Parts: sequence; C-alpha cells; structure tokens
Amino acid sequence: MNPPTWLARNVSKLLPTAGKASTVGALRCTQERLATTLSRKGEALSPRQLRRVLADLQGVADSQVSEVEGGQRAMDFSRWYEAATSAQRCDCWLLMSEQFAPDLQKIQAAREPYEAAQNTPDAGPAEIRLRQALASPRTRLLQRFAVFPQGLRFLLDLRAQLLPHLKTEKRLLALDSELESLFSTWFDVAFLELRRINWDSPASLIEKLIQYEAVHDIRGWNDVKNRLDPDRRCYGFFHPQLPNEPLIFVEVALLDDLPQAISPLLDEAAAAADLAKATTAIFYSISNTQTGLRGVSFGDSLIKRVVETLKTEFARLKTFATLSPMPGFRAWLGKNASSMLDKLNAKTRVALARSLGVETVTAADLLAAAEQALALDTKSPLRRFLMQCAAHYLSRELAGGKPVDPVTRFHLSNGARIERLNWGGDLSAKGFKQSYGMMVNYLYDLKRLDKYRAQFSKSKIAVSSAMADLEF
Amino acid sequence: MNPPTWLARNVSKLLPTAGKASTVGALRCTQERLATTLSRKGEALSPRQLRRVLADLQGVADSQVSEVEGGQRAMDFSRWYEAATSAQRCDCWLLMSEQFAPDLQKIQAAREPYEAAQNTPDAGPAEIRLRQALASPRTRLLQRFAVFPQGLRFLLDLRAQLLPHLKTEKRLLALDSELESLFSTWFDVAFLELRRINWDSPASLIEKLIQYEAVHDIRGWNDVKNRLDPDRRCYGFFHPQLPNEPLIFVEVALLDDLPQAISPLLDEAAAAADLAKATTAIFYSISNTQTGLRGVSFGDSLIKRVVETLKTEFARLKTFATLSPMPGFRAWLGKNASSMLDKLNAKTRVALARSLGVETVTAADLLAAAEQALALDTKSPLRRFLMQCAAHYLSRELAGGKPVDPVTRFHLSNGARIERLNWGGDLSAKGFKQSYGMMVNYLYDLKRLDKYRAQFSKSKIAVSSAMADLEF
Amino acid sequence: MNPPTWLARNVSKLLPTAGKASTVGALRCTQERLATTLSRKGEALSPRQLRRVLADLQGVADSQVSEVEGGQRAMDFSRWYEAATSAQRCDCWLLMSEQFAPDLQKIQAAREPYEAAQNTPDAGPAEIRLRQALASPRTRLLQRFAVFPQGLRFLLDLRAQLLPHLKTEKRLLALDSELESLFSTWFDVAFLELRRINWDSPASLIEKLIQYEAVHDIRGWNDVKNRLDPDRRCYGFFHPQLPNEPLIFVEVALLDDLPQAISPLLDEAAAAADLAKATTAIFYSISNTQTGLRGVSFGDSLIKRVVETLKTEFARLKTFATLSPMPGFRAWLGKNASSMLDKLNAKTRVALARSLGVETVTAADLLAAAEQALALDTKSPLRRFLMQCAAHYLSRELAGGKPVDPVTRFHLSNGARIERLNWGGDLSAKGFKQSYGMMVNYLYDLKRLDKYRAQFSKSKIAVSSAMADLEF
Amino acid sequence: MNPPTWLARNVSKLLPTAGKASTVGALRCTQERLATTLSRKGEALSPRQLRRVLADLQGVADSQVSEVEGGQRAMDFSRWYEAATSAQRCDCWLLMSEQFAPDLQKIQAAREPYEAAQNTPDAGPAEIRLRQALASPRTRLLQRFAVFPQGLRFLLDLRAQLLPHLKTEKRLLALDSELESLFSTWFDVAFLELRRINWDSPASLIEKLIQYEAVHDIRGWNDVKNRLDPDRRCYGFFHPQLPNEPLIFVEVALLDDLPQAISPLLDEAAAAADLAKATTAIFYSISNTQTGLRGVSFGDSLIKRVVETLKTEFARLKTFATLSPMPGFRAWLGKNASSMLDKLNAKTRVALARSLGVETVTAADLLAAAEQALALDTKSPLRRFLMQCAAHYLSRELAGGKPVDPVTRFHLSNGARIERLNWGGDLSAKGFKQSYGMMVNYLYDLKRLDKYRAQFSKSKIAVSSAMADLEF
Repeated sequence: MNPPTWLARNVSKLLPTAGKASTVGALRCTQERLATTLSRKGEALSPRQLRRVLADLQGVADSQVSEVEGGQRAMDFSRWYEAATSAQRCDCWLLMSEQFAPDLQKIQAAREPYEAAQNTPDAGPAEIRLRQALASPRTRLLQRFAVFPQGLRFLLDLRAQLLPHLKTEKRLLALDSELESLFSTWFDVAFLELRRINWDSPASLIEKLIQYEAVHDIRGWNDVKNRLDPDRRCYGFFHPQLPNEPLIFVEVALLDDLPQAISPLLDEAAAAADLAKATTAIFYSISNTQTGLRGVSFGDSLIKRVVETLKTEFARLKTFATLSPMPGFRAWLGKNASSMLDKLNAKTRVALARSLGVETVTAADLLAAAEQALALDTKSPLRRFLMQCAAHYLSRELAGGKPVDPVTRFHLSNGARIERLNWGGDLSAKGFKQSYGMMVNYLYDLKRLDKYRAQFSKSKIAVSSAMADLEF
Repeated sequence: MNPPTWLARNVSKLLPTAGKASTVGALRCTQERLATTLSRKGEALSPRQLRRVLADLQGVADSQVSEVEGGQRAMDFSRWYEAATSAQRCDCWLLMSEQFAPDLQKIQAAREPYEAAQNTPDAGPAEIRLRQALASPRTRLLQRFAVFPQGLRFLLDLRAQLLPHLKTEKRLLALDSELESLFSTWFDVAFLELRRINWDSPASLIEKLIQYEAVHDIRGWNDVKNRLDPDRRCYGFFHPQLPNEPLIFVEVALLDDLPQAISPLLDEAAAAADLAKATTAIFYSISNTQTGLRGVSFGDSLIKRVVETLKTEFARLKTFATLSPMPGFRAWLGKNASSMLDKLNAKTRVALARSLGVETVTAADLLAAAEQALALDTKSPLRRFLMQCAAHYLSRELAGGKPVDPVTRFHLSNGARIERLNWGGDLSAKGFKQSYGMMVNYLYDLKRLDKYRAQFSKSKIAVSSAMADLEF
Repeated sequence: MNPPTWLARNVSKLLPTAGKASTVGALRCTQERLATTLSRKGEALSPRQLRRVLADLQGVADSQVSEVEGGQRAMDFSRWYEAATSAQRCDCWLLMSEQFAPDLQKIQAAREPYEAAQNTPDAGPAEIRLRQALASPRTRLLQRFAVFPQGLRFLLDLRAQLLPHLKTEKRLLALDSELESLFSTWFDVAFLELRRINWDSPASLIEKLIQYEAVHDIRGWNDVKNRLDPDRRCYGFFHPQLPNEPLIFVEVALLDDLPQAISPLLDEAAAAADLAKATTAIFYSISNTQTGLRGVSFGDSLIKRVVETLKTEFARLKTFATLSPMPGFRAWLGKNASSMLDKLNAKTRVALARSLGVETVTAADLLAAAEQALALDTKSPLRRFLMQCAAHYLSRELAGGKPVDPVTRFHLSNGARIERLNWGGDLSAKGFKQSYGMMVNYLYDLKRLDKYRAQFSKSKIAVSSAMADLEF
Repeated sequence: MNPPTWLARNVSKLLPTAGKASTVGALRCTQERLATTLSRKGEALSPRQLRRVLADLQGVADSQVSEVEGGQRAMDFSRWYEAATSAQRCDCWLLMSEQFAPDLQKIQAAREPYEAAQNTPDAGPAEIRLRQALASPRTRLLQRFAVFPQGLRFLLDLRAQLLPHLKTEKRLLALDSELESLFSTWFDVAFLELRRINWDSPASLIEKLIQYEAVHDIRGWNDVKNRLDPDRRCYGFFHPQLPNEPLIFVEVALLDDLPQAISPLLDEAAAAADLAKATTAIFYSISNTQTGLRGVSFGDSLIKRVVETLKTEFARLKTFATLSPMPGFRAWLGKNASSMLDKLNAKTRVALARSLGVETVTAADLLAAAEQALALDTKSPLRRFLMQCAAHYLSRELAGGKPVDPVTRFHLSNGARIERLNWGGDLSAKGFKQSYGMMVNYLYDLKRLDKYRAQFSKSKIAVSSAMADLEF
C-alpha cells in the first residue's frame, strides 16, 4: 500500500487543483485521500490526467450546476470513459469511490442531535438531517449519468466491469455499494413493466434472449422461435428507459402434467401443446440478463406476476412448477462421496458394492461408476444411491442455514418446495456434467407460499413426501 | 404532551400486540414511543383500532414477506385508508412516522467503525454499513405502496393531505421527509418523459391542465384549446406510472417579438401566429400540478429540455423568455411604501406630490393613488415611481440572499435575468391585485445561463440595462 | 338549357385545347359535351379558366403518369379548389362529371362479345372486358385525390358540398354516383376499426362528438364527459386514414332495466350505474358524422359489433335495446289527424270528445289539445289516443313497404322489433316538437334478428304484444 | 365439353335446390350453367356436395343478410375450404366463377337507355344504372370474405392457389379478374402505410423478409441483420389489416459512390457506412411478397415514396440508383448468339476469334468460352463482346415495344434510365447463371423521371452515354 515514487513527486502538483475543486460543492479531497487513491502499482493515468478526470467528475457532481447541465457533462465524460483502457477505467473508479465520500464532519454534527432527540418529537427532523448528511456527493455524481438517454446503460456496464475487481480492490466497495443502492431504487419492480415476449417481439430483443439464456442454451433462431410459439409463454421485466432490454425473463411451457425431462420441451419438431387442456405451467428457464444488477432481485416478483397473468388467461391451470437444473451436484458429490457412503446401512452398502463388482465401495469406485450413470436401469442400486445423494444435497446440505444449491435457494426463498427428482431429465453434456443428468421440479403451491417462505427463513426446507422418501 | 387518560388505561393493552409485532423484522415499538404517538387530544382511533392499524402497517413492511405480497397488503391497507376520516388518517400518519424509525443501536454500532476507517481502504464498506443502518423500515413500508398500480397516486395524495399538518405536528416531519426523499428518486427528471400536449391529447389530460393551471386561470375548453392551437406549444413531464398526469407543464407562445402583455396571448379570437417567422419563444405559464411533490423540482429541467426541443423544431428561434406575473409586489409595497418614498430625491418627491395633488406624499397617499394606476399615462410621476419600486422589489429585495418574489427566485436560479418590466401587462383583476397589472420578462440567454446561475448563487442578481435604469 | 351567348363566341377557343387534351389517355371532350357542360346561366369560370381547370383535371387523371405524380397533381389542384368560390366549384364538378365519362364505343365493342359468350367458357373473360370498358377515367381521377394525405378528407367534403345541388342539376349525378361507389369500397366496414371512445380519447375527437351528435344535442364538455363516464360505453367506426374522425358513433348506457325516459341518462349529476349488475345495454344515440358518406351504411354493422363486444365484457347482459326518438310523428299527425279519428269506434270517440270538452272531436280540436299533452294523466282518453296514433304511425304507416319513420326503418331493417312506446320519454322542447315527448324502445333480440329482418324485407313489421295492443 | 355421365343422371337432383337458391337475391343458376360447371373430368365433389357448397356460397352472398352475418357465413365457409383437397377447391372456384355472374338481362335493360342518353343530362344517371347492372353477385360474395379478421389473408391465398390453373381452365378467369379488381381497390397504395423495417421490427416480420427476398437470397438471421443495420434502410408497404406482412419491400444501401458489385453490400463483416457522407442511395433489392396480388403494382410508388423519405432524412443525397440483376440475359444469349456475332465488323470478329483460339467464331464457341467469363481481363475481346450483347439485350431487345428483361421493364416504366453495366457485379452461382455475373445500375434522375417515362411509353429507351458507347 505504498504510494509509488511518482506520487511522492507529484502529489503537490495534484493538490492545488484538487484543493480548488474541493471548494466547489461538498467535495473533499485531502492530501491523504488522493495519495491513497493513487497508492497502487501500475497506475494508468498520469497525475495530470488524474487531475483532469477528477476535475471532470467534480464538474458532473457540482451541486451548483443544473441537472440538465450536469447530465450534459456526464455524457461528455462517458465519451472519454468509453475510449479509456481497462486500467484507466480502474483509476477512474477509484476516484469515484474515494473522492466523493460523504462529509464526516457533517455526519458527526448531525449524529449527536439525532441521538439526543430519541423519543422526543424532534426525533423525526433529526433523523432527516442525519440521513441528509450521509447522502454522498457520489450519489449525485452517479445520478447525473442517468440524465442522458444512454446513461443508465452506461452505469449498468460500468458496474459489470467493476464487479470482477472487487475482490482484489476493497477501495471500490463504496462505489459498488452506491451503484447497487441506486439500482435497487431505479429498478424497483414496482416501476418495471411485465411484458410478454413472443415471435412478434422485436428481433433485437429476441436476439438478447439467445445471448442471455443461462439455463438451456438457445441454439439459434429456430430454437428460440420454438420457445416463443403460440403454445408457450415467455415474460420479462422491462425498465422504461431500456425498452428492448429484458432485465430478467422466464420461459414457460403449458402442459397437462408435470414433465420429467427437458428435451421434449426443447424439441422444435414436437407438436404444439393443446392450450385448452393445459393444467400445468412449467417454468423451465429463468435468466437474469444484467451482470450490473447483481444484488437487485426480480425473480420472485417475476414468477408471482407471471402466475397471476397465466391464471387470468388460462382458467384451468392448477399446477405451477419448474423443471430445473441442479448445477452444483456433481462437483459437490466429488468432495462428499465418502461421507455419503457412510450414511448407507451395511446391507445396502453390500448390494451397492456387488452391483459395482467390487468388494467394498470407495468414493473413487463410486465416482468412476457414476460416469456411466445414464446406462443404469430403474432398479440399479447405484441409481438409487445417486438419487439419495441428490435429495440430500438439495435439502440437507445447507450453508448459513440455506441450501448450497443456488437454484434450490432461489426457489425455496420464493416459497416453493422441492417436489420431485427426475432421473435422466437433462441428457445433454451440460446436464450430465452438472448433475449426472438429473433435474428437479420445484412446486409453487400458491396456498402455501407464505408458510413455506416463513419456514425457510428459519432454515426449514419444504419437500414433498416423495423427496422425503429418498432421504437416507 | 400529556398522554390522555385513556392511554394511561390502555397502554398496557396496546403493548402486548405491539411487542409481538416488534419481533417481526426490524420494527421497534417501545412503550414510550407508542405512548408518545398517542399523546395528543382528539384521538380518532380506539386503542384496539390503533393496534390493528399498526399491525397492518407492520405486515406491509415485513421484510420476510415478498414484494408482491407486501404490495398486496399495502393495497388492502389503502382501501381502509381511503374510507378513513381525516382524523383517523392523522393517527395513521403518526404511526407511520414514529413506529418505523431506524434502529438507533444499529446506527451507533455502524458509526464507530465508520469513523475509525476514515482514510483507510475500509472507509467504503464502513460507509455502506452506516448507510444501511440508517435505512428505515419506514422506507420499505412506503416502497411497498408503490408496488400496486394505483400506489404511487396513493402516496402522492397522502403527502398532499399531510403537508398542511406539518406546522402544527412536528412528529410528522420524519414521514414527510421520507416521502420527499423517495419522491426525489422516483420522480428524478432522468426518468420522466417530456411530452408535447396538444388538442389531440386525451381529454382527461387536458381537463387536468384546466384544473392545475396556476398562473393565468383557464376559463374553459375554448380557452385551453386556444393555448393548444397549432401555433402554440405546451409540454409536460410525465412519469411512466402516471401516464395521463402531467407533473408540471409549460405553455409557450411563438412570436416575432418580446410581448408586453398577456391578453393578446389569451385571446381566443386572435389570428394564429406565423410559425415560419417566429423568432421568440415565450414561456407564459408554468404550473406544478402535484402538491404531494413539494420539494421535488422540475421547472429548471423542463425549461431547458423545452428550449432544446424548440430549437430543433424552429431553427429561426433566437430569443427564449417569459412573460411572468409578479405575485407579491402589491402586498410588499403595502408594507414598504414609506421606505421606498425615502429613496426619492427632493425634486422627484415634490413632482410626485404635485401630481397626486398633495403637499407631501405619505405611504397612504401613495397606496390610495395607486388604486387608479391603470389610468396613469406614460409620463405620470406615479407610474414612474411604481415601476422603480417594482424594479427594486424584483432585484434588491432579498431574503437569505435570494429575491423575495417566488417567480424571480425560480427563473434566476435557472440562470435567467430580469429583462423588462411591462406596465399594463396583465389587466385582469388578479393581475391588478398582485402587481397593479405589471408583468415581467425574464430572459433565458443560453450563452450566459451558467454564468448568471453561478453569480446568483452568490446573490448577484442579473438585470438588463433597461432594468438597471429603473433602480433608485 | 341554352348555351349562353359567350359560349357561342368562345366554344371554338375552348376546343383546340380540349381536343389536344383528348388525345391524352382515354379522355374524350367533344364539342357537344363541352358545350353542354357550359350551357347554364351564371358560369363562374371564364372559358380560359375552364380550359385551365379541365387541363389540370386531365393531368391528374392521366394514365401515363405515375400514381405518386398523379397524387401530387391532385394535391396541387385541391389548393386551387379550396380557394375557389362556390360557383366556381360547381363548374369544376360539371367538368368532373361530364368530361371523364367512360368511352361509349369501347363499351359497345365489349358488349357484343359478352352477350355472345353467355354459357360458354369465354363468358368470364368477356365479362371482364365489358367491366373494364365501363371503368371511367372519372374513377381514376377521383382515386388520385386519395393518394395524398388529406385527399380522402377533400373528397368527403367535396361530396358534402355537392349533394345539395343534385336536385337542381342532374348532370352532377354521375360524379355523385362515382363518389358513392368509391366510398362504399373504401369505407367498407371490413376495413374500419371499431374503437371505444372514452374520456381518455383525444380532445379533438371528443369535440367532434359534440359537433356531430344528431339525436340528443350535447350541451358541452360536462355533458359529453357524463356520456363517456366509466359506467357508459361509446363506440365508433374509424378509417385508418382518418384516425381522429369517427364515421359513426353510438352511445350506450348499461342499466338493469329497459328505460322509459332519456333525461336520467343525460343527467350529469346522476350516480354511476353499477356495472356488475347491468343486464341491459341501451343504445340511446346513434349519429352518422359524414354527410359526404350518404348512401354508405354502417349502422347495422356498428350495432352488431358493439353487441358482440359488450357481451364479451359483460357476461350478465341479456337485453339489447334502444331508447329512440320518433322524429316525424307530430308532423305526420298534423296531416293525418282526421283519418286517425275515423278509426275510433263511436263510444271511444264520445269519451274522447267529452274529455276535450267538445261535442264532436275535429282534427283541429285534437291538435290544439295535444299541445298540452305533457299534462295528461295516465287515464286520459287523449293520451291513449295519441299513443294509438303513434303505434299506428310506427308500424302501419308504410311507404314503399317500409315504415315512414326513418328511425323505425333503420332499426327494423337491422332486425329489431318495436318493443315499447314511452309516454313522456323526452320532455325537451325538441322531443315535444317531434313526438309530443314520446320515445320508443326497439329491441334487438339476438336470436330473432335474421327472422325479423327477412320478414321486414317482405314488409312485415315486428312488434311486441304490448305494441300490438295499442293498435286501433 | 361433354357433361360426364353422372351429370346426365344427377342434374335433375341438383336443380331443385339450385332453382330454389336462385330465387334468393340476384343469383341465377340455370340448368345449362350448372351443367357447364360440372362438365369436366375428375370432379372432386359429389353432386350432393356441390349442391351444398353452392348453397353455402349463395348464403354468403345473400343480399338479404347483413354484412356481419354474411361475414360470419364466409368465415364458416373458409373452414370447410381450408380442409378441402386441391381438387375440391378447384370445383369450388368454378362455382364462384360461373354461378355468380352478373345478370345479362339487367345489363341489356340498362344498356339501351345509356346509349340513348349520350350527350344529354341523363347520361350520368344512365351510366350509373349500367354500372350497377354489371356489379356481379360475385363481387359481394368475395367482399364478405373480407369482413372477418383473417378473410383478406384467405382471399390472397385463394388467388395464389388459383393462378397456376388459369392457363388450363379459362372458366376461372372471371373469378381471377374479380379478385384482381377488388385487390386493386383494397390495396390501392393510397391506403398502404410506408414503414421502415429495421432490427427492432418484429421477428415474425423479419422472418418474412428472409422468406420472400427474391433478388439476393438471404442466408439467415446474420445476413438479414446486416441488411437492417443502422447504416442501411429497408422500407415496405403494409396494409392495415395485415400489419406484419410487407406487401413489397426494398433494401437500400447508403454509399458515397455508385457501386459496381453486390458482394460488398452483402458482406456481414464490412464496416458500417458513414451516413454523414452518404451521397448515393442504392436500391439493391426489391421483392414482391404476395403471389395473390399479381397485377396490382406497388414498386413504382414504393421507390418514389422511399426517395422522398430518404431526401428528408439525408440532405446530402444526390444520386438514387439501383444495383440490379439481369435475370434473362444468359438464356437470351443462348438463343441469339449467332445474330449478335453477325453484328460485329470483320476486324472485330477476327480479333475475337483469335482470342478464343479458333478460326471463325461460332455461337457454340462463344457460349463455351463464356463459361470462363469470370477469368477474362479488362482488355479481352470476349468480355467486350459480352458487354455489348448485354447492352443490346437491355436496350434494344424489345417485345411489344418494351424491353424483354423484366427488371429493365420495371425500372424504365418508372422513369429510370440504364446507367451502367458492371462486369463481375455478382459473382455468385446465381449471378453467373443469370448473366455471367454482370449487374446493371438503373439511375433515378428525379428531374427527368417524367420525361423518360413519357418517352418509354413510346418505346424510346433511355440510356446513359456510357451505355450508348457499348451498342454495336
């Protein structure tokens, strides 16, 4: 954390400007802070450039300047940024993160009256003043990027670029948190539009589905057309400023039964479902599209709004469920095979060993044999054992009181329950690599969502009786 | 501040429920606070009702509940509220203001690390934790009202109803401030749409212009149609959730010269202007429509966005100015007539006295004579004197470094200058009552907006040379 | 019909140009025809102007010119026309009607093969050639006015101006018929859009409702707003090229019973109807808006499409009916009072005389007494008699096998039946002047529309049993 | 033309029904006609079915039935039709063509007064009556298919299916002509919307571009995306009832020079053009999409409307031209090589022979050598000769006074001139097969369009001086 030598030489050159700038608005730029900002190896910007960038950012955040003018400056700055190198951008983020912090003295000055006012009528106004003191110049700086038409897109991209650096550069956390906080207000689901996406939607939008689909890769335009056919539904949340950019989208198949496998749903040649007979809505793919929106969650609201919409359109729908991957199972089993084997009683273990043609089953035996899992028939002891492991993985393997599997965590936090494990649900290479081809149905039982959700917050995992039967 | 007797009797009944509720989420409801909430005369809600309302609100704000469910609860609550009496609503506001405050202990726990982390890489994360601690349950409570379709309208109306009570009931300030803070994010001009309003706009929207016009009352549909004629322009800012509700609107006439009087602009029988020859855009009326948005300002951005739009449509436009009322002049002169007279030199004072037929002019003489101001001819000493007073009122009469006249304050803070005083500019009863019929042109000189704006922030008032000539 | 003297002098000057023009395309302009065109008193255009207008019109209709260029010429011509006087326009119409007729020789050349080809495979092609021979240059001339954006409006207005002249100037009939024929294709209901009109519709559109309402005058914006309230429905047919111009519109009230009087429906202060309980849709006003569309009928389709739309929205609706005026009754009774009195038997006639305080009732007595009709009570012989006359007028007074009352004719030709006569249904001056205040309900019994309509084509008038009871 | 035996047996069974139907409206169905209809081998419909279909069609066309009801019947009939076999449909077309002809007697009755009224004021009304007599029940029959939402699509498809049968079955001509006549009114460009198509257009629409592109096959979604990039323009005409169905579309590249070859325009990897510098708009592909609209022309209007639109958007555009294929050249040269060779003078012919390594050039030599045309360098005598042939083919080879090449015919009839021949303009297999890879620029010189168009109508072909130089 030692300032490089050039800073020792240059910090005095930097400060005059910075000092002057600090008189504008509420910006503070002390010698220490600027030194801190610059104290890393591989600086990309020269002191002169740093001064210039800092002055530009201060101009954007200047509270004396109108919002329109500030927005104009932000747009000008965004042009510089677009042309900057990755390392130059990183310097820029540090300036944004560290040079536009709230004013400590103001905070201290507001805090004491606030604490004193507790339980008096003055508590409210004192609370307000404290919160205002905490509102950072950084907030205004970022807000002004939202003023020009492409500004929201700019900020989303900026955060997406920033995120991978957070682990190694803690000083960026303040900027990241500021962005997350602004995004959670701006992208509040209350202000998003739920829109159906179909084959009449703009090609530029559908192209994004192909690009963003995270669960079952879309292989091209015929594949996506199949998923948007009249017997399917696809919904996304949209922000008014990003009209052709789905923030999240869900693909739904309308069937007459809970499906066991994904391939019939992705089969472009399959006959269209008879919507008049549909009783079951299957959410078979949910994809977030914006890396920059990490921490802002839409999935829960999306599913609930889509359920409402579907119920209005199709009165016969009774069952709402998913057909979901189990992305972490195989990697998890690789590390936990031994302890899973330990859970078997002697008799079962012997049967398993016999079926594998060994005397006693080791973790290595198990994992080697599992490579041929797709060939196992219904009665195979190994198949039974792998399904027991999967059931355990889903519902018993918790971290921080929550399931380790991210998909399980997501659906259960929405109030769903683990309904069924489907052997051979996804025979693709990806499916096998993730979970030996197994898939999961999560059931959204509308009458029990709140109950399950409340239980889940206390780490109680809701499973069907069929799932319970699979437990060791 | 004494709790009424029934509270003494009832507080224990209240608390069990409240205590239970306080375990849900971050809500705190101590005996003292609730007692405080209730310690006023004329309570409208019984203890039992209070408990019920509080529990309902806690249910809305419950962080364990999904946003969709929270929004549903908020909508249910809004139905109760709509049916409530004014006094019942006031009780409800107090609960919202006082029972959903941030957690003091959390704030204290976050503050110390924050102060300690100054100038270290941990400053950012510490800042974030402090800000999160300050995020009140009240914020979440209010956000959930925005989830259902009419919720934003509900919150705007709630604040409009609340505002008149703030002076007498300081305990509502926290709620008011929370609403203002949320509104300034939700109604950030970056997310508003600038839309032209014309005679093809929805009747329901145009009806709102009639209702909201604040400057020159719209006398009916023929009047508003004249203002929306093809030779006029009218623009408003709209929020995506309130599509037919202009938040602010401005009426523009396109002329070939700076106008001296308002009546030709409002004359429904006047010939249409020749847009091909228009050199001058006159903003002759700007009206905010939402009382509930007090403190959230759009006017500056509106004018600048409209100027840009007009310049694109009409390449010949050179001058952008207003024709504005001077609402406070006459009331102000009523109190300051004497000191104004004192500013005259002896000779002028004699001439003024002679023209009024008195020996020496008193404030009373002056004000009595001013009642006939409209009859004064160009050379009249009284007319000259009244215009000098008006010029003084506009540019020299400051409070807190800003002009006392609200219209002057608004335009000058946008970077305009005081351009011209128009005798007889508004001959209506309202115009005479406000300013003896005088009107003002404020000029938006696009090249000097930032300069004037910066000067204005230092209490330097920009005036034209013609205005300077009018000063005493 | 003698050509005025100037024509004798000028026809030779006219003809060279005309002769030349006639070589262009299929235009024929013989000396006789042009002489005929000009043979009337009060010509507004000089020979030179006539030549010029004719040449311009020939330029528009020129088949050698592209549709875009022809449309451009039509637009240029429309500017001349807009500035022309009424008499000049009349000259212009005569040129359009007479100088662009089909070519007689072509028709004759096509007719003979057509007749010869009957019952052979050549009948089809021969029919085609005959029809092509009949397609007049006038058709192309008019079509080219539809090419430019305001052209359709231009043609509608032209026909509206032309119609009053048809009775006195038969030579305009060809032009009128050509327009009617084109309009019936262009305004085929298959290509019109049924659109709901409500208070969110454009003000410019709603202004047209006020202007066009033909049945119950709209008194202003509050009145029209009441008719567009959420508990009402209003639908119109729109042409894609005239997006804010309803071609016809119908106003509907949703009630729980068949209404007896119009005033509750027009009462702006009346409480809103409870749509959840509505069983009855009342069409209380249908207005055509475009005089220029005379002969092109929409009313039947409008009512049927609206019925379908309402049934989808309100499943409980059972009854579809009108509350209609009886515009011609009083004028008719003025002429037929004697013959109506003759229909009474002696006893009834005596009772009627007694109630009027005369010995024997004459037509004059009757009509004089009827002036006080609104004061008559339920049992009054005169009231009974007037209602019998009205029933007779509606269902027995035919001309050409159809009811003389235009409203009756319209609804019965759609398949409705005369359901009920409502004494005091319209107490306005207009209502009294038309029908002594009586109104009629026509019932659209969806199961019997086709049956009634077929009977009506054979002059069988469908009435309810209550109406039958009123017959003499 | 002999009725098959079953008709001899069955015609009496048929006629009772037909006779009854003929009393409805203006339908005539004589024994002879029906016999004619059925007198062909391979009837697909039994007599009973024929009777049924005829009765259904008569029900659709019934003038006693409302348009809404008629439209309903038409929709019901369309369901039967959709399920019918190709041969059954052919029977159905014959019924539509022959059984709904106009009434000869009415026509005769109207013709005589019309002829007598020539040059009298009665000419107009007489003309009207004659035209009404010619309006066939077939017109009403077809119009009623346009009443239901998918009806226009139905009729377009019906005609597309019908067209291939016209050559062998003349009796269908009447139906075809009736459809063409209706379509030219319904699809009059005056009522079509010019719409830009870009990458934000619906995927379902863009899929149709891929499907319909007639000039340069679209290879997939990346190819079409390249053609819809921001530096390109694509426009189509749309009918309000077929909102996602372009009737015709044109693809435009914006360049700074007249292009010589198509491949740079279709190169997905090429850099985007700089629109600010564009001086030249190139129409490089125009495709009609609806076989059923044969005879209804849009191309001329499309190009002119697009030119206007582009001039408004890009003020610097000076040149409007095409880069077009020459589809029939090679086939034509195959037949005319000898006569082309005869046009050469002796010296040139010797040089050509020498370059081909033969003593005297025969047609066969020439065509054989031309197979290697792409390898020829600029100075090659064969290349020069082939270009001369192409120039001759384009501008001298006429049929009926018009160029034999359909593309030349189209652009020249719009007023364009042949500007330049581009050797190696289209190196694709298709391009070589059509024209040895040559392409043509047609220039739309806006100031001379009308002049060239008028000349073209007199068979004068407009060519540039460069093209003139290529003539033999």
